[in-house]
Amino acid sequence: MENIDAVFKSIDEHQDEFIDLLRESVAIRSVSADPARRGDCIRMSEWARDQLRTLGAETSFWDLGKQQLQSGEELPLPPAVFGVYGRDKSKKTLLIYGHLDVQPAEKEDGWNTDPFELTEIDGKLFGRGSTDDKGPVIAWIAVLKVLKNLGIELPINIKFVLECMEESSSEGLEKGLEDNIDKISDVTYSCISDNYWLGRNKPCLTYGLRGICYYFVEISCARQDLHSGINGGSVPEALNDLMWIMSQLVTVDGQILIPGIAELVAPLTKDEDDLYDKIDFCVDTFKQETGSHGLISDSKKNLLMNRWRYPSLSLHGVEGAFSQPGAKTVIPAKVIGKFSLRIIPHMTPEATDKLVTSYLDSLWAKRKSPNTFKITSGHGGMPWVADFRDANFSAGSRAIERVYGMTPDFTREGGSIPVTLTIQDLTKSPVMLLPIGASDDMAHSQNEKINRENFVKGMKVLAAYLFELAV
Amino acid sequence: MENIDAVFKSIDEHQDEFIDLLRESVAIRSVSADPARRGDCIRMSEWARDQLRTLGAETSFWDLGKQQLQSGEELPLPPAVFGVYGRDKSKKTLLIYGHLDVQPAEKEDGWNTDPFELTEIDGKLFGRGSTDDKGPVIAWIAVLKVLKNLGIELPINIKFVLECMEESSSEGLEKGLEDNIDKISDVTYSCISDNYWLGRNKPCLTYGLRGICYYFVEISCARQDLHSGINGGSVPEALNDLMWIMSQLVTVDGQILIPGIAELVAPLTKDEDDLYDKIDFCVDTFKQETGSHGLISDSKKNLLMNRWRYPSLSLHGVEGAFSQPGAKTVIPAKVIGKFSLRIIPHMTPEATDKLVTSYLDSLWAKRKSPNTFKITSGHGGMPWVADFRDANFSAGSRAIERVYGMTPDFTREGGSIPVTLTIQDLTKSPVMLLPIGASDDMAHSQNEKINRENFVKGMKVLAAYLFELAV
Repeated sequence: MENIDAVFKSIDEHQDEFIDLLRESVAIRSVSADPARRGDCIRMSEWARDQLRTLGAETSFWDLGKQQLQSGEELPLPPAVFGVYGRDKSKKTLLIYGHLDVQPAEKEDGWNTDPFELTEIDGKLFGRGSTDDKGPVIAWIAVLKVLKNLGIELPINIKFVLECMEESSSEGLEKGLEDNIDKISDVTYSCISDNYWLGRNKPCLTYGLRGICYYFVEISCARQDLHSGINGGSVPEALNDLMWIMSQLVTVDGQILIPGIAELVAPLTKDEDDLYDKIDFCVDTFKQETGSHGLISDSKKNLLMNRWRYPSLSLHGVEGAFSQPGAKTVIPAKVIGKFSLRIIPHMTPEATDKLVTSYLDSLWAKRKSPNTFKITSGHGGMPWVADFRDANFSAGSRAIERVYGMTPDFTREGGSIPVTLTIQDLTKSPVMLLPIGASDDMAHSQNEKINRENFVKGMKVLAAYLFELAV
Repeated sequence: MENIDAVFKSIDEHQDEFIDLLRESVAIRSVSADPARRGDCIRMSEWARDQLRTLGAETSFWDLGKQQLQSGEELPLPPAVFGVYGRDKSKKTLLIYGHLDVQPAEKEDGWNTDPFELTEIDGKLFGRGSTDDKGPVIAWIAVLKVLKNLGIELPINIKFVLECMEESSSEGLEKGLEDNIDKISDVTYSCISDNYWLGRNKPCLTYGLRGICYYFVEISCARQDLHSGINGGSVPEALNDLMWIMSQLVTVDGQILIPGIAELVAPLTKDEDDLYDKIDFCVDTFKQETGSHGLISDSKKNLLMNRWRYPSLSLHGVEGAFSQPGAKTVIPAKVIGKFSLRIIPHMTPEATDKLVTSYLDSLWAKRKSPNTFKITSGHGGMPWVADFRDANFSAGSRAIERVYGMTPDFTREGGSIPVTLTIQDLTKSPVMLLPIGASDDMAHSQNEKINRENFVKGMKVLAAYLFELAV
């Protein structure tokens, strides 16, 4: 640990070099959702492999097979990059996950700068992937570069798993991990830097994610779309049934009306209850950033609990009804309403499916409609909660204290990062989410950025974390 | 009237010639909705003008101006054909309206034959426009041809107004009629053959149409779409508000929940009440043809009254929500719900707007949502009801009796044909709708057809009607 100040100094001195490295990676348009960019994705995997190889890591590609497009066409999946840095059996081994692909971006979408040309304005590094997730991956590479240049031996072994399909449901990765299970069975801890601080000022470590259950409610009233002039007043309409069903799911203030859901929720302990007050979270900033007209609660604690530890139900839309601008006098024959529940401990997709189905069935019986009714559920995802008092989180927390001079908040997220559970289950190692970007980084949106300060301090946190883990 | 049997005989003898004429017109792909077919539409207008001119009518084109496409491009509107046949001041003058354009059609949509090649199978003439509305227009031309060939003088003067934009909201026609008001101010009666029998077996004359009021309910909860993971449970959702509002408009069995609407409906007189029982309408056939899973009533009388003389409310869809196949975890920021009311005497769009707005406002107040809410109404259309005991309908009825040996049903329609009111108002003449096709002709759909029998007997009805009108 005596070397850490030298490491920090070197990171400061070489920061522009690492920003150039980020610039180089941002320029590779690795948009995984766009089949036309598949070559760039493969190039991005090669670029990352070469970076690790230059540092002295043993690297290999995991072939993840092919992607079947809706058109029937087959595309090769970009390979995952596997990198091994150190094989000292006396040391612990850290698995680092990151992704090399990005969301689509076009200047015309409303970017102020070219999304694939990293541009610094007022200490903000704008570019697609700057914060999600090329920035964090480059931060790890930068740490290894600094250690190598200073001739400092790594305190632990590192195994990198870098994929290039995360923004496209991590297609192929789970199978890739399973196929190579023997290569990661010695992992002691795992760390994922692919989320963000809760706000703009205070670092956090993330120990929980909500799971998800997605539902499709299909109601049909006729063989084909009807005309509201000819048939209006004669035929009980499917969309009318659907609107009624979907209006019975959740109240205006977010209370889920499905009986039994509340009983599945893990009880609030005194310990947990105490956590929320200390969290750095500004309700006004949150409201401002979402641009919402109102919030379900004005209390910080209630909002955080609603987002982290209570289930929520959202209505997403209707397939089969008229959805274009303008007026059309159609009576849609078959409509599919879509909604989802974010689930939390101790909810499981199976238990949730049962309650949802039974409630919808009872609503349908009450409706007394002659139409046909079908519920199907999409692929459910489990929630994840880790013990933020474990050695992994303690190391992360001490690392942040050393760099920022403050204890991080321990946070959860309302969304899901499915790879978290996959890695935890396959490696049987404790996973920690260690975000380095801020809440206003606009991942997935226009003008994505990472602050220079977050990027540079992030490297320091990652470096310190390596040493703290070894303690 | 002594000549009518000779006319009928000649129609029978020359029917194949008239079917060839229909074939010729069907082959002209006058799809008014397709800008690429605008040349065909103009060619179709020219074809019809030439037909009338060959018969000896004075013809002219009405320039209807230009159409502004959404792309900003301007396209010439196809001209309306105006034809004058006879200027004998001692005779009555009949205005005949028809349209020359058709709905889009592609073999791949599910046609069994080439939609633009008239094909006879089992006495059915399949082809786009065969029944809507080229068939009826050709039937009129055939009648004039027969009279000319037989050397029979027309018992009344005729003025044709044939447009080629009916399937595209009759764009330009109202202005064309207004610009040429002096040319149609002497019209005694008007006749439109552009709808269908109520069933497959019994002819009818149509004396009523419902009007329409279309509404847009816009609710917004945020500046941009939100993520159901991050914001689910924090933000009151616009789509949830909208589903609730839209579920409060009409019951599963079609009862409109907007206070005051029922009070606007013209009272049911004993006279009218007696009409329904005599109408030839089969509930089972109707159910079969719509392919509906249920009907709001199993009583013939209730169904007919719901369709003709009561308002109905239909939900059409939602703009701004997720409407694609598959799953997306979006919380839509702004959604626009769309519904319409079919209105009947004595409802007006103005009175209906007031009731709808006031009810929606009261629902919104009850909802207590922090979101923003806006109602707008589309262009409303008035209902139309004629006196089916007038001289025009009596002539039509006697003509049908002569050809079919039965009194026609007097029917209304649930939909709207806006040109009906326009012609009635501008010419100040009584209008009659005289359908010649059957209920299963599949206008607007795949495999549109007109039965050879309907086509040929239709010509006879039109011929007899001319003579009956003159009586």
